[in-house]
Amino acid sequence: MKSLPSRAIIREVGLRDGLQSIQTILPTARKCAWIRRAYEAGQREMEVGSFVPVRLMPQLADTAEVVAYAKTLPDLVVSVLVPNLKGAERALEVEADAMLVPLSASHAHSVANLRRTPDEVIAEIGRMRAARDAAGAKTRIEVGISTAFGCTIQGDVSRQEVMRCLQAVLDAGADQVGLADTVGYAGPGAVRALFEQARRVAGDRLACAHFHDTRGLALANVFAALETGIERFDASLGGIGGCPHAPGASGNASTEDLVFMLEEMGIATGVDIEGLLALRAELERWLPNEVLHGSLARAGLPKTFTGRSPNDFTAGVQ
Amino acid sequence: MKSLPSRAIIREVGLRDGLQSIQTILPTARKCAWIRRAYEAGQREMEVGSFVPVRLMPQLADTAEVVAYAKTLPDLVVSVLVPNLKGAERALEVEADAMLVPLSASHAHSVANLRRTPDEVIAEIGRMRAARDAAGAKTRIEVGISTAFGCTIQGDVSRQEVMRCLQAVLDAGADQVGLADTVGYAGPGAVRALFEQARRVAGDRLACAHFHDTRGLALANVFAALETGIERFDASLGGIGGCPHAPGASGNASTEDLVFMLEEMGIATGVDIEGLLALRAELERWLPNEVLHGSLARAGLPKTFTGRSPNDFTAGVQ
Repeated sequence: MKSLPSRAIIREVGLRDGLQSIQTILPTARKCAWIRRAYEAGQREMEVGSFVPVRLMPQLADTAEVVAYAKTLPDLVVSVLVPNLKGAERALEVEADAMLVPLSASHAHSVANLRRTPDEVIAEIGRMRAARDAAGAKTRIEVGISTAFGCTIQGDVSRQEVMRCLQAVLDAGADQVGLADTVGYAGPGAVRALFEQARRVAGDRLACAHFHDTRGLALANVFAALETGIERFDASLGGIGGCPHAPGASGNASTEDLVFMLEEMGIATGVDIEGLLALRAELERWLPNEVLHGSLARAGLPKTFTGRSPNDFTAGVQ
Repeated sequence: MKSLPSRAIIREVGLRDGLQSIQTILPTARKCAWIRRAYEAGQREMEVGSFVPVRLMPQLADTAEVVAYAKTLPDLVVSVLVPNLKGAERALEVEADAMLVPLSASHAHSVANLRRTPDEVIAEIGRMRAARDAAGAKTRIEVGISTAFGCTIQGDVSRQEVMRCLQAVLDAGADQVGLADTVGYAGPGAVRALFEQARRVAGDRLACAHFHDTRGLALANVFAALETGIERFDASLGGIGGCPHAPGASGNASTEDLVFMLEEMGIATGVDIEGLLALRAELERWLPNEVLHGSLARAGLPKTFTGRSPNDFTAGVQ
């Protein structure tokens, strides 16, 4: 039986991936309250905004202020999404801990979404790295390969192309890479195969998995990725965001469901799940016109749940 | 990396576990249509009813007729639930292929649900075996240990008690045993631990897993059970039934989501998923007052889905 890690990191992406996908614009003070309460519940990595043109994404226009607040919290790793060099320069200015750069392995998706081909984005990543080095900054550059498991526009995305993109962004200067199932096509079979192959290309620089629950497989996919050595996962409180592409379908993996599964498996997340569920209830009040997803909040914690896992399931026969 | 089976069986339990939990009474002709269409889609095991007193469960009053119809379909394994000797005698009369006997490892649940202690049920299983042998019948006796992962009434259910029940029912003459997460408390950690331990008690006679999706973990739990060697899973079309105990929460694992995951993993189910989705749409029309669950039907098949899996994910590097 494959061994599993003893701990895992959940990066909260609800403040970016979540809020950019919904209609409601959450005021800056509420974003800061979300960050503070998630921090108090134990979350230590958050993607808090995006440096994209404000006219394209007014929901995230306050990203610089939100980063400034988040950086006041000790040991919180504060990430922002940046689509291009201009965004990267802003991330450097605000001294974000990490800049997350999406690179779509689907040519059609890349052109539709970023108006650039994958190779143009790869070249831009080289310029971001040069800017970071010129500034003497510590901001980590992490590239997420989106549509790594298929694309709603072009359909198949070849594994060869995903591996080519991975190698190219590492060569261009990315510090870390991850794989994202942007459209919810992945299942555990593809996850196992693609992450194993990516590990051979990127080694320890393969550092994150981003799954959507569109077809109900996000948590099974996390399980499969854990077994390939992945210990860091993106998730969104209440599963908001994630371009579900279908009415009623959910998008991002729900942070609270993911914490519940990992803790049950004896994998420490550092997160107090009851605090997180209380924050989710608050978020539901803040977003009265949005549908929140996730099963745990509806069903409640099991009567037998004792908080953080004692890791006893790995102990064998009782 | 743990190897996975090349094929798995999904036993459809919607006609029993599903229909007994909802208000609508489905007419016999529709039950037979469900069975026929599920059979045409490739399903070869179904739990089609229950021999319990009609006053307790009028939804399943036509079980004998439904069994008679199901038995006309070649190679279909026709199962019925039986709670006691009287039910077992009826299952023998109608020549069901298997009788499924629930035994709750939670004393409190057993008394509340069956009005018998676990030991009284174990003694009854001995009488069922004697009746089967006296009749010279081939009807398989399969005991499902319910509340094996915890109980909403009593809370914890000890692993020792689950193992004691398993051993006792095998000693009493059960042909096969399974473990059921009746209330949706299990996660992959507990699944792995309990199925591994049960395997040491029951060997190849440990033959089925029954998961609920109450907290979103049914499919991750299937993954964990597959890795312990389980190749047979209960599921319900549209996830109906399964005592969800919470408004909006789902119950049984959805057959269609489970088929999708297994086929994606290169595990052959023999089921044509498009035929199954068409039947689910029909079931939705038959049950206009019920909420069906499952993610695949909402999101649709991925553009890249090519039908039954070519098993290519186990082939390693492309």
